[in-house]
Amino acid sequence: MTEDVIAVILAAGDSGRLWPVKDKLNLYFGNITLLNHSVRQLKKAGISRFIIVTGKKNRQNIQSLIPEKNAGISLNLIVQENNLGMAGAILAAKNLIKDNKIIVVGPSDIVEDYLFSDFNRLLAGDPEGIFVGKKLDSYSPLGFYDIDAGTIAGVREKPGPSKAKGKPAAIILDYYRDSNKLLTAISAVRSTTDDIYEKAKDILVRDGLVIKLLNYNGYWGYIKYPWHILEVASYFLNKFPDKKNEAVLHETVTIRGPVFIEDNVTILENVKILGPVFIGKSSLIGQNCLIRESVIGEGNIIGFGSEITRSYLGSNCWFHQNYIGDSVVLDNTSFGSGAVIANYRLDGGNIISEVEGKKIDTNRTKLGAVVGRNVRIGVNSSVMPGVKIGENSFVGSGVVLNSDLPENKYIEVRKDSYRVLNNKVNLKTGAMDKNLGNLKF
Amino acid sequence: MTEDVIAVILAAGDSGRLWPVKDKLNLYFGNITLLNHSVRQLKKAGISRFIIVTGKKNRQNIQSLIPEKNAGISLNLIVQENNLGMAGAILAAKNLIKDNKIIVVGPSDIVEDYLFSDFNRLLAGDPEGIFVGKKLDSYSPLGFYDIDAGTIAGVREKPGPSKAKGKPAAIILDYYRDSNKLLTAISAVRSTTDDIYEKAKDILVRDGLVIKLLNYNGYWGYIKYPWHILEVASYFLNKFPDKKNEAVLHETVTIRGPVFIEDNVTILENVKILGPVFIGKSSLIGQNCLIRESVIGEGNIIGFGSEITRSYLGSNCWFHQNYIGDSVVLDNTSFGSGAVIANYRLDGGNIISEVEGKKIDTNRTKLGAVVGRNVRIGVNSSVMPGVKIGENSFVGSGVVLNSDLPENKYIEVRKDSYRVLNNKVNLKTGAMDKNLGNLKF
Amino acid sequence: MTEDVIAVILAAGDSGRLWPVKDKLNLYFGNITLLNHSVRQLKKAGISRFIIVTGKKNRQNIQSLIPEKNAGISLNLIVQENNLGMAGAILAAKNLIKDNKIIVVGPSDIVEDYLFSDFNRLLAGDPEGIFVGKKLDSYSPLGFYDIDAGTIAGVREKPGPSKAKGKPAAIILDYYRDSNKLLTAISAVRSTTDDIYEKAKDILVRDGLVIKLLNYNGYWGYIKYPWHILEVASYFLNKFPDKKNEAVLHETVTIRGPVFIEDNVTILENVKILGPVFIGKSSLIGQNCLIRESVIGEGNIIGFGSEITRSYLGSNCWFHQNYIGDSVVLDNTSFGSGAVIANYRLDGGNIISEVEGKKIDTNRTKLGAVVGRNVRIGVNSSVMPGVKIGENSFVGSGVVLNSDLPENKYIEVRKDSYRVLNNKVNLKTGAMDKNLGNLKF
Repeated sequence: MTEDVIAVILAAGDSGRLWPVKDKLNLYFGNITLLNHSVRQLKKAGISRFIIVTGKKNRQNIQSLIPEKNAGISLNLIVQENNLGMAGAILAAKNLIKDNKIIVVGPSDIVEDYLFSDFNRLLAGDPEGIFVGKKLDSYSPLGFYDIDAGTIAGVREKPGPSKAKGKPAAIILDYYRDSNKLLTAISAVRSTTDDIYEKAKDILVRDGLVIKLLNYNGYWGYIKYPWHILEVASYFLNKFPDKKNEAVLHETVTIRGPVFIEDNVTILENVKILGPVFIGKSSLIGQNCLIRESVIGEGNIIGFGSEITRSYLGSNCWFHQNYIGDSVVLDNTSFGSGAVIANYRLDGGNIISEVEGKKIDTNRTKLGAVVGRNVRIGVNSSVMPGVKIGENSFVGSGVVLNSDLPENKYIEVRKDSYRVLNNKVNLKTGAMDKNLGNLKF
Repeated sequence: MTEDVIAVILAAGDSGRLWPVKDKLNLYFGNITLLNHSVRQLKKAGISRFIIVTGKKNRQNIQSLIPEKNAGISLNLIVQENNLGMAGAILAAKNLIKDNKIIVVGPSDIVEDYLFSDFNRLLAGDPEGIFVGKKLDSYSPLGFYDIDAGTIAGVREKPGPSKAKGKPAAIILDYYRDSNKLLTAISAVRSTTDDIYEKAKDILVRDGLVIKLLNYNGYWGYIKYPWHILEVASYFLNKFPDKKNEAVLHETVTIRGPVFIEDNVTILENVKILGPVFIGKSSLIGQNCLIRESVIGEGNIIGFGSEITRSYLGSNCWFHQNYIGDSVVLDNTSFGSGAVIANYRLDGGNIISEVEGKKIDTNRTKLGAVVGRNVRIGVNSSVMPGVKIGENSFVGSGVVLNSDLPENKYIEVRKDSYRVLNNKVNLKTGAMDKNLGNLKF
Repeated sequence: MTEDVIAVILAAGDSGRLWPVKDKLNLYFGNITLLNHSVRQLKKAGISRFIIVTGKKNRQNIQSLIPEKNAGISLNLIVQENNLGMAGAILAAKNLIKDNKIIVVGPSDIVEDYLFSDFNRLLAGDPEGIFVGKKLDSYSPLGFYDIDAGTIAGVREKPGPSKAKGKPAAIILDYYRDSNKLLTAISAVRSTTDDIYEKAKDILVRDGLVIKLLNYNGYWGYIKYPWHILEVASYFLNKFPDKKNEAVLHETVTIRGPVFIEDNVTILENVKILGPVFIGKSSLIGQNCLIRESVIGEGNIIGFGSEITRSYLGSNCWFHQNYIGDSVVLDNTSFGSGAVIANYRLDGGNIISEVEGKKIDTNRTKLGAVVGRNVRIGVNSSVMPGVKIGENSFVGSGVVLNSDLPENKYIEVRKDSYRVLNNKVNLKTGAMDKNLGNLKF
């Protein structure tokens, strides 16, 4: 990008669909957050001026995100007080962007680096605008572009499968040579729904602004539902370098495939790691553990005999003889010995998860749980596939949790689930016949 | 045997006592089924003409059994339409056996090879008939022979302990020089019970047919109850060769005692195998597993940290951190992580199992479960000793199953077993004091 | 001590506060009991005449304790028939101790060897008496001494925090040059409570007997509540020699820190031991186990994949894929596969235990269970922190035990905790898609 392009990063906070995940831009994949990843990618593409528009709730978090390392850039943080969605975010930044070239960035749209090379090539022709689109194999309820000879002819939000057919879906990476035209178009929209920005885009192209389509065919990740974190983790895992920093690996550890292991990691006897795997700094992998294709944040203690497979772990979690498969586990969460996340239905069917009161088909046959921050899971408890647990909640020992648990709750087995009888058995010492077991271990 | 002896193999299907096992002759012990085993043993003894009499229900299965490898033999398959038991099976084969020497074989009576050498020696004297008997240490409800100077003087079905005392029990391996005499005797019996065949045998000897007794003292296995499969498995395990075909054994694997490992088996890190053990082709034994004295069919995946001890596994089952002891698990069954089969009563007493509505003392203090085909066992569930699970049934996560589960059922923990409270605990970050655990791993 | 001092060892049995532990002096720490430890320590200090005063109930046990090895000492066993506490014990020994120098010993007050050197130095001055005191960091309901210029000025039983402040607490190791004075003082007390002995001590010093205070600052262990066993075990663990007697250690075993392993111990593949650890004779540690900072008695079978951490195990127990943390498990107890003792509250708070009907704060955030003798714990059951289980009781499979279970009880999951539905799922063979799991183990 040229130096005079300002990036407007939309970071106003998450939809309830992501619950119990809050603030997806704050999730670490490897040693940087999604927001940092976006900033870094844009900087590499030539951007040096950034405006990050946050919501009121997540301001604190976003501030903590600002990477001091990203020296050499100008960065403004703006809090969006209105509730007008993306359009509102742009309006909130009005004073900083007017009379400028801007690129509006949805930082949770994860794309490959080469897209920015293509972008810069198109930008070299000094167009009035550039939108990025990708043709999908199957319909998703996204925005779509009508195309006419390489330029955008219309913008349609969630048009339905038949109208979307053959059209590229919109990745939010929208360049405008003249921000004022966008601001004017936004002002012209009369809508109370959250699609003002898309309607403004449609107005612009219908009014004759020549916006080039950048056709993109690479990876496009997004996090609309919490289990999408697993797909994004899988993408990043394949991008990480194969690098072991000062890790203390016991000589009996087996590693297959690429791993990215940060400083001060300890890996103990007979651990097996099947890459790609990332392990954040100061994490410990105890004896006999099996780690497969997972992102493991920093400060985790993965105790003795656990298996972590195709999962995303935040930081400072604690495990002890657990099976965690195809799951998202956020920070400061602990699992008691023998607690298990089930990741496959008994009937092998697609896993259903409830989102904002509706049953959603995740289109996955393997999916475990999504566990919020500060959760405690008791010993020998079982969390069923697709279940989500709100932050600060406790799952009592032995509980089989088969529906979502809200925040700040405690679920336990009722005492009257048991009955106590007199035990008339007269056990003699030695009644437990050890020889029956044929003690050849 | 001489070439003119026809073997009539009684394969008309299983009694309800074997539930949830159906079609015991189709069970694989090593790489052949019980039926194949019997055919192979008879062929080795000189038989080249076989008639296999099946029931209507199991015809399909039996057909799949016919080993193409057993080339060089003549083999007829007959479906028994009547319900007259063994006698009916012989009548169904009437046209093929009349005017011939025949040997009536119960293929689930498992005997040692040397019995056939003894048999052939006796046959060399061209007797009118040979029956095989074995004196038992304790009474079982079987058929028994009265003996007079080496020949059979009478046949008694389930005569009770006092009348059976000192007499040999009948192993079904009955030779008749003239099949027509047997057919005539069967026709003469007036009975609607399932002992027509035994009554016909009694008529024959009482009418003066001179039938020699072959006294047998070797191993005699039979499968009357499903847990007898474990005893038969134990017999075969001790017969298998010590042979590892192309198995991929990790260098850290420990093997003690004889093992018979088929092609394409994979055995991973730190597995310990205590023979005798059979592992069928394409099975995988994951890290840290312990396998003891078991028959493991083909295509099984025994995941990470499981123990399989003194058990019989069919094919294509799936295990994950389970303990399976003294159990029978049939094909296509899976166990979720942490599911356990208990194989020992808390009071150390004999394990009782319910068969056709009656409590049966199995005379075993160590016995796990009998699990039918296509069963799914959820994570952290517990199956109690002596319990049987019908095919296509699911045991929900966390269930303690302490009685039989019929076919096509789903048992789950009731939701009202739990209660949800507000969690007033204000967990500070770091509330989980990691140092308390004294983290020297 | 000089040869003419008689040790009166108070061994009259335990308070109900110790339930389900009975007879704490009979507990083995390493290869000797607490009582043997005390006798051995006194013998080393010069004592050669012992009177052990037992109660009626525990006489049998105490007799079995008498170490034949302690040859060269005179040892009298007296049964205390009265119920007058410590004073009654001394009265019961009246005939044997009158006209003698005596030292009254509470053998469950565990102190370091050097205290006896200090004691002997003080004794060399031939004082009328010596009491031992230790200043505590925080108040406990014990006896306390008033001090005046190095001699005892008064004895107060449980005086409360303010009156105890700055005063040494009484360790029961009381020397009297003239036993008759003590006997007279005891006779003078009019009390029906259990503090007659303390009142007699107070009378003696107030009547002018000059009793020296021996100020002690070393380790002082006592077992007032059952979880104190863990603290005493920790003390002894650090005293044991680093010594492996004829143990069969597999070459893959990892040992860190000091271990004291007795004869005929077997330790199998991939076990990790983090000392200090004691393992009694003939115990077996199975594959993949992790043992940390624990006292493990003799004849234990610790099966496959278990972890024992900071715990005290009696003898002849049986474990199988269990986690046992910060727990006391007495003799002849067994744990089914997957049973877990939880040792940390979900909220990280202090663990509360009920003692004689009252909730007691154990002042520990890590504490598991106290399990009596001859207990059976079913598979996949969970025992909550601070819970105690009486001897001869059974915990059924899958039970979450969150309060104490009395002796001779059986607790089980109610059958109506489950419901059985018809399973309409039509599982095709191969419905369990093995490839989804990405079978790179």
